[in-house]
Amino acid sequence: MPTVVYSLSNAAVIETPVRIKFLLQPTRREWVEQAIAHLDTILLDHSHCERKAAGVAINLMFRYPSHKPLVNALTDIAQEELDHFRQVNQQLERRHIALAPLSPPPYASRLNAAVRQQEPQRLLDRLLVCALIEARSHERLQLLAQHCPEGELAAFFASLVTSEARHYGTYWSLAYGSFGQEVVAERLQQLAALESEILSTPYPLPRMHS
Amino acid sequence: MPTVVYSLSNAAVIETPVRIKFLLQPTRREWVEQAIAHLDTILLDHSHCERKAAGVAINLMFRYPSHKPLVNALTDIAQEELDHFRQVNQQLERRHIALAPLSPPPYASRLNAAVRQQEPQRLLDRLLVCALIEARSHERLQLLAQHCPEGELAAFFASLVTSEARHYGTYWSLAYGSFGQEVVAERLQQLAALESEILSTPYPLPRMHS
Ligand SMILES: [Fe+2]
Ligand SMILES: [Fe+2]
Ligand SMILES: [Fe+2]
Ligand SMILES: [Fe+2]
Repeated sequence: MPTVVYSLSNAAVIETPVRIKFLLQPTRREWVEQAIAHLDTILLDHSHCERKAAGVAINLMFRYPSHKPLVNALTDIAQEELDHFRQVNQQLERRHIALAPLSPPPYASRLNAAVRQQEPQRLLDRLLVCALIEARSHERLQLLAQHCPEGELAAFFASLVTSEARHYGTYWSLAYGSFGQEVVAERLQQLAALESEILSTPYPLPRMHS
Repeated sequence: MPTVVYSLSNAAVIETPVRIKFLLQPTRREWVEQAIAHLDTILLDHSHCERKAAGVAINLMFRYPSHKPLVNALTDIAQEELDHFRQVNQQLERRHIALAPLSPPPYASRLNAAVRQQEPQRLLDRLLVCALIEARSHERLQLLAQHCPEGELAAFFASLVTSEARHYGTYWSLAYGSFGQEVVAERLQQLAALESEILSTPYPLPRMHS
């Protein structure tokens, strides 16, 4: 297994082994085709995803205000997601696409429905759901970067790929730091199975997580 | 009336007149004495305030996702509040104060109770409540900077004073941009009266907005 070094701000540098097969199923080819055929909608949905990513990080800080490694790491993530949000909005502006609401796919709400309500399981599940969403974003941004026929937009997607990988690493590290390897691995397996299962049903509208 | 120039990111620079007497009543001397006598608690409460300020900015973006000047300005504010949050937490760390929950004073919930539920009044009221909270933070940080007997901490409070002034200016500008001078001035007068009235009742615990 490869070794990745994460740096949580204000915390010791944590060296952790990382699962390569974090996502159990790769994205279907049809998703890529649908996304490339509807780049404007994907970009607008992507804007919502980045704002939601910042919101989720802040919500977790509200829920666990005394958890110092979590607070420090998620302060950084929230700021970075706001950077992404601003950048996606600049791409929208460049394409003359107005900011607008967009119905979300069932992806996040189905994952969140699997979060157990009792602590400490709730914290574990929320961290792993975030890790899976970030991992899937990482994978799909890479696919968009590879397949997008517009050079500038492809380069933009490529510029976000590494951050999202770092984010899933951070969520995974936080889970690992609080719950240990064995508990995390077992629960991650279950939630990753659900994540892939949700995406196995095609969703009619083009979305980042359809 | 003096003129202040605000720059909303990605929007035209807006030149607006600003009320000097944004706050109807200055902070009571007793608040300063109580705060200086309980600097550790004030600092912990300040940490919560900065996180909440970021959360409120993001919540407003969720509620008004198509309002481009609002989205652009509040992306910047949310990031800056997260900077402040990180900085306050570093001060806490330096003083060996653990992150911990702290009961809020009734200030924000009483102001929020005055927000009308119908749009567009709801947007106007939320912007003005934010403007008032930022204005009061600005005033109190200045008082803390002046009266804090510890040099490093006084300098830290002083370093935040200008940002909070800029934030209340931004919230006010957003209200002005959507609702115009007359509507804003009338409602601000009412909410500012409430804000001063809330703070006229002494609150037993030391808090930023007690
Ligand atoms: Fe992101
Ligand atoms: Fe992310
Ligand atoms: Fe602040
Ligand atoms: Fe502020």
